[in-house]
Amino acid sequence: MSRIRRFSMGNPINTEAVLKKLPENKGEIPYFKRIQKMEVEKFSADSQGTMVQRDYLSYSMSPKDKIYGLGENVRGIDKRGWVYESNCTDDPNHTEGKHSLYGAHNFFVIDGRETFGVFLDDPGRLTLDFGYTKMDEIRITPEEWNLDLYILEGDTILEIVREFRKLIGRSYIPPRWAFGYGQSRWGYQSEADIRAVVKGYRENQIPLDAVYLDIDYMEEFKDFTVDQERFPDFSAFVEEMKQEHIHLVPIIDAGVKIEEGYQVYEEGVEQDYFCKDQEGKDFAGAVWPGKVHFPDVLNGNARKWFGSKYQFLLDQGIEGFWNDMNEPAIFYSEKNLEQVMKKIKSMKYKNMDMWEVFAFRDLVNGLANNPEDYKSFYHKINGKPVRHDKVHNLYGFGMTRAAGEAFEEMEPQKRILMFSRASYIGMHRYGGVWMGDNQSWWSHLLLNLKMLPSLNMCGFLYTGADLGGFGDDVTEDLLLRWLALGIFTPLMRNHSALGTREQECYRFTQTETFRNLIGIRYGLMPYLYSEYMKAALRDEMLFSPLAFVYPKDTHAREVEDQLLLGESIMIAPVYTQNANGRYVYLPEPMKLVRMKSVEEIETEVLEKGHYHVEVSLEEIVFFIRPGKIVPYTKSGQFMEENEYQEKDLKFLHFAEGRAEYEWYQDDGYGKDYENPAHYKKLWVN
Amino acid sequence: MSRIRRFSMGNPINTEAVLKKLPENKGEIPYFKRIQKMEVEKFSADSQGTMVQRDYLSYSMSPKDKIYGLGENVRGIDKRGWVYESNCTDDPNHTEGKHSLYGAHNFFVIDGRETFGVFLDDPGRLTLDFGYTKMDEIRITPEEWNLDLYILEGDTILEIVREFRKLIGRSYIPPRWAFGYGQSRWGYQSEADIRAVVKGYRENQIPLDAVYLDIDYMEEFKDFTVDQERFPDFSAFVEEMKQEHIHLVPIIDAGVKIEEGYQVYEEGVEQDYFCKDQEGKDFAGAVWPGKVHFPDVLNGNARKWFGSKYQFLLDQGIEGFWNDMNEPAIFYSEKNLEQVMKKIKSMKYKNMDMWEVFAFRDLVNGLANNPEDYKSFYHKINGKPVRHDKVHNLYGFGMTRAAGEAFEEMEPQKRILMFSRASYIGMHRYGGVWMGDNQSWWSHLLLNLKMLPSLNMCGFLYTGADLGGFGDDVTEDLLLRWLALGIFTPLMRNHSALGTREQECYRFTQTETFRNLIGIRYGLMPYLYSEYMKAALRDEMLFSPLAFVYPKDTHAREVEDQLLLGESIMIAPVYTQNANGRYVYLPEPMKLVRMKSVEEIETEVLEKGHYHVEVSLEEIVFFIRPGKIVPYTKSGQFMEENEYQEKDLKFLHFAEGRAEYEWYQDDGYGKDYENPAHYKKLWVN
Repeated sequence: MSRIRRFSMGNPINTEAVLKKLPENKGEIPYFKRIQKMEVEKFSADSQGTMVQRDYLSYSMSPKDKIYGLGENVRGIDKRGWVYESNCTDDPNHTEGKHSLYGAHNFFVIDGRETFGVFLDDPGRLTLDFGYTKMDEIRITPEEWNLDLYILEGDTILEIVREFRKLIGRSYIPPRWAFGYGQSRWGYQSEADIRAVVKGYRENQIPLDAVYLDIDYMEEFKDFTVDQERFPDFSAFVEEMKQEHIHLVPIIDAGVKIEEGYQVYEEGVEQDYFCKDQEGKDFAGAVWPGKVHFPDVLNGNARKWFGSKYQFLLDQGIEGFWNDMNEPAIFYSEKNLEQVMKKIKSMKYKNMDMWEVFAFRDLVNGLANNPEDYKSFYHKINGKPVRHDKVHNLYGFGMTRAAGEAFEEMEPQKRILMFSRASYIGMHRYGGVWMGDNQSWWSHLLLNLKMLPSLNMCGFLYTGADLGGFGDDVTEDLLLRWLALGIFTPLMRNHSALGTREQECYRFTQTETFRNLIGIRYGLMPYLYSEYMKAALRDEMLFSPLAFVYPKDTHAREVEDQLLLGESIMIAPVYTQNANGRYVYLPEPMKLVRMKSVEEIETEVLEKGHYHVEVSLEEIVFFIRPGKIVPYTKSGQFMEENEYQEKDLKFLHFAEGRAEYEWYQDDGYGKDYENPAHYKKLWVN
Repeated sequence: MSRIRRFSMGNPINTEAVLKKLPENKGEIPYFKRIQKMEVEKFSADSQGTMVQRDYLSYSMSPKDKIYGLGENVRGIDKRGWVYESNCTDDPNHTEGKHSLYGAHNFFVIDGRETFGVFLDDPGRLTLDFGYTKMDEIRITPEEWNLDLYILEGDTILEIVREFRKLIGRSYIPPRWAFGYGQSRWGYQSEADIRAVVKGYRENQIPLDAVYLDIDYMEEFKDFTVDQERFPDFSAFVEEMKQEHIHLVPIIDAGVKIEEGYQVYEEGVEQDYFCKDQEGKDFAGAVWPGKVHFPDVLNGNARKWFGSKYQFLLDQGIEGFWNDMNEPAIFYSEKNLEQVMKKIKSMKYKNMDMWEVFAFRDLVNGLANNPEDYKSFYHKINGKPVRHDKVHNLYGFGMTRAAGEAFEEMEPQKRILMFSRASYIGMHRYGGVWMGDNQSWWSHLLLNLKMLPSLNMCGFLYTGADLGGFGDDVTEDLLLRWLALGIFTPLMRNHSALGTREQECYRFTQTETFRNLIGIRYGLMPYLYSEYMKAALRDEMLFSPLAFVYPKDTHAREVEDQLLLGESIMIAPVYTQNANGRYVYLPEPMKLVRMKSVEEIETEVLEKGHYHVEVSLEEIVFFIRPGKIVPYTKSGQFMEENEYQEKDLKFLHFAEGRAEYEWYQDDGYGKDYENPAHYKKLWVN
């Protein structure tokens, strides 16, 4: 039995997170008590530790209660024991002490004494204290009490999640080529750089389907431009790459450069499509190109206009994009910079003591993403001005929706790749997310794994992390281990930052291993693609914590470093340097599969229990559940080479008698998703 | 068979890391090849990723080789797979991407195809590429080739380490009370604050032996002063605390405030005891109090003078200190600040693009600990000026040696507590180290554990981390789990930073658990103190990786999260949030001990093998080795209450027949270490 109730508080803005608002329930909110005006710590980057008077919603936890959800975030699969903040943030240091990352995903399920889901549809700031202040209490503190609160009930966690996913609508489906392996780096400057990358992969026969273009491809970081010197004939270059079976995927930033004569800027100003400051002038912040205006993607007309701009690149043969800096990140605002510089210039700095030194540093470092700046500009929503901070978490959603709605018009029959950095629930209908600017840290490999099921709960199925890590320097073993997780994530992209060690696979020594491991991704596509499509079309989890599938197994509820992927397999990647293996818990008998390549496979049946499993750098290990099948095929250098029919399938399975698998297969590019002909029963005897 | 050979290159400075220099070996350096002028990446915070031409020493590793050592550092017990830099650094972000922490501990053992130790006695910068550039190669790149290189050979890792420890001399031994639990926080402002802390512990009957005074106790952050308003009669207050069985432990900073009339400053200027700039004037940097001079602790006379200043606090009843900011940390130098401010004031900031924004931030953030500043001042060593950067890593050693040598004169019969933040091998004879400004992160609990054996290898036995974490906000469960490791570390101190959540144990809800867990520390003192003293007096490891004790057990060699502590026990703390237990590997049969308090103990014999062991937040679990004994006693509210004789001992043991334990016990305050009467044989039948 499942049930969803909506409770409305104050005057909530319609975020369009849910497809169709449920009628409001006028009864008491179940499970929670509203505590009046308690003194609570205010958690936010700008005011940590200060005490404020606040109402909050309180839920009393039992010792065994666990909390799942919150999408893209720090810490565990079980979110208990920390305080989170719903606040899309451009912060590249994803350490345990942070309270939010790039997304605002306010859906979670409490499981233990009672099992129910909560969705807080609030685009402003919201504090979620999950047993931080008191280990046995949840405290929900909206900054303003204008929100819709949904309580979801059902017999199992999986049922509650499915009901939530139906409420928020079908997850974004990318083109099939976007399941191929992609290479990216902030720093590819020119056609020559990109040709060299492609050559590096092809010569070493390491599969590759896409090269991502970071900000360098643009003319002075202007959206919807291509630098003419470094890319003299972009259309021809896109076509040249297509001949090599490579898709180029350019980045689009949120801010539009202020520059006279630049068409996008001129149009935006003329049509009043930019966010306004307090005086009604176009708000000026700065990002990569220096000063920019921000398109008001929460205003229907402006959104339509911004979306239409993607046409410029579609026309040149581009079939995919990534939207960045759309929290929105602001390096400084025109006004705040002026104030800060005034302060600095008047400083008596001859003998600064510690407080003055700290204040000076804070002044400069506080220029970026300053909360005061977010309170200083306005959107126009349904004709009314709304201050940005009240709807901050909707910006990335709005920008990606702009693109998604435009694609639907411009290319109604074709899937266009789209993923974003910032997001809010609802955006999952228009694109995926990547996990932002992580670091080349072993701990981020594990964090990457933990975010997968939480993101799936919130509708984000097309996701993955920057394999090898974006910031800091990678090591060869870290990249290999990260790829061993990455071959299972829908978005499989190696990306790194300017100034860090170059981490294209062909730069390292173990070329054959890179070739084989990435090759396994292509070989497993019959399973991976089918599971993705079924999860999207049926509103199911792609990656599940063991707790969701084995809720009565008390040890399975504890496991934070293994995941079920689709109906047949469990993954347990190695995430520790110099380890030759790891501990794995099998909640039921499973068949261990050890692949050095799609040709070199060993299997072993293991009983339920705890194991220490050896996994070398040269192999992928996963586990097949009883009675389950994993269809696979040969590898390929790119998706088109890897195309397969039913007759090309081979099977890994753990079946004693007959076992079946429902296989989803379509052309991978069109949108005829529902066609029953796409489903086939496969079986082994 | 053990052997140590010293090879000398260039003109090394005598660091006095070793007690007595061995005669120089004029032969070829074994194991390593010197590679001439290869292009290598230069790793340092200031020039990451740039290529330079450098000679280096190369060692070719087999796949199974592991590398142990490097003292206080990031990453694993096995140091393979990263590049380290010998460079004492004040950096509170101990993340995986860093290359050094506060200490410079250039001793390591390579174990695999061959087993041997290497000590690089070089007080300047040194890059140790342990399989980063190429996974199978070690590359040692001194910035200058003026160093002593020691090659140590022996039959086992433990033998090599013992020989090294004999070479560098006996480790520092603290007074017995310094094994008690201590509370610290940057922010205790006054007598009243400290009384409140003591009251909080005593009222809740949570044991406590010491309160640490961070910088707040001083008058305007001036060394060897006490603020008269906040501590109107310091001697009386120290005495009052002693009546409560509380030792106050003040911090001493490296920099001496520039202030006319301040005696320490005046004396230093007058006697020429401060480091000089290029023009021969006293070098001016800034730390807590604003501008300071740095005592030239590498100059014998200045060192003697600085050491004599501790008398001011000894005279008021103080019996222990911690030395801080002695990398030395520099917030800014007078000259660089002037230049930076000039640049900023002339900036055209009206429309900064990304490069200008980054440059602006780097300018301000680069003020602190700037490598150019370290090249701009001079020591006088044996009468000759030596530029600071050439001997940078000796500064903390020099400062702590100043204190240690002074204590030896002022209090020849009494142990004075001393530990430092910065250190170099050799300093271990004068004091311990704490692990610096860690964070309230679960990952730092594990990092804390991993540093213990590496520090022991380098002579640092008296050590521990800020329990609960210094930066960021702690949670109650993190503090409990960290204490469960902390009860085993010689320095057991809870410390936190200004602005973070207050983390004194009595502020949380599970008072009884805090009381019991810390109580177990006191109960285990008969074992912990005895093992500490034996390790110090016999140049042994206190904490050993399993690899050292079970070198033929291939799985034991992999274990990075369990340690042997002394001869009898193995520890395996929980370091994951929300986990109700963890995996443990037993390399031989052991007896599991589960303690909820010293009164509530359960045991269970386990065979060799892998286990998942449940460990609740309310208990301590450890393991006793076959034939071994752990003497323990009742608990106490402070060390004096906990004093015990042989008749007060109880025994935990895993003995089938007779088993013996060599028990070391002395008065804990004097220096009559070698007295044979301190050793007693204990046994069970």
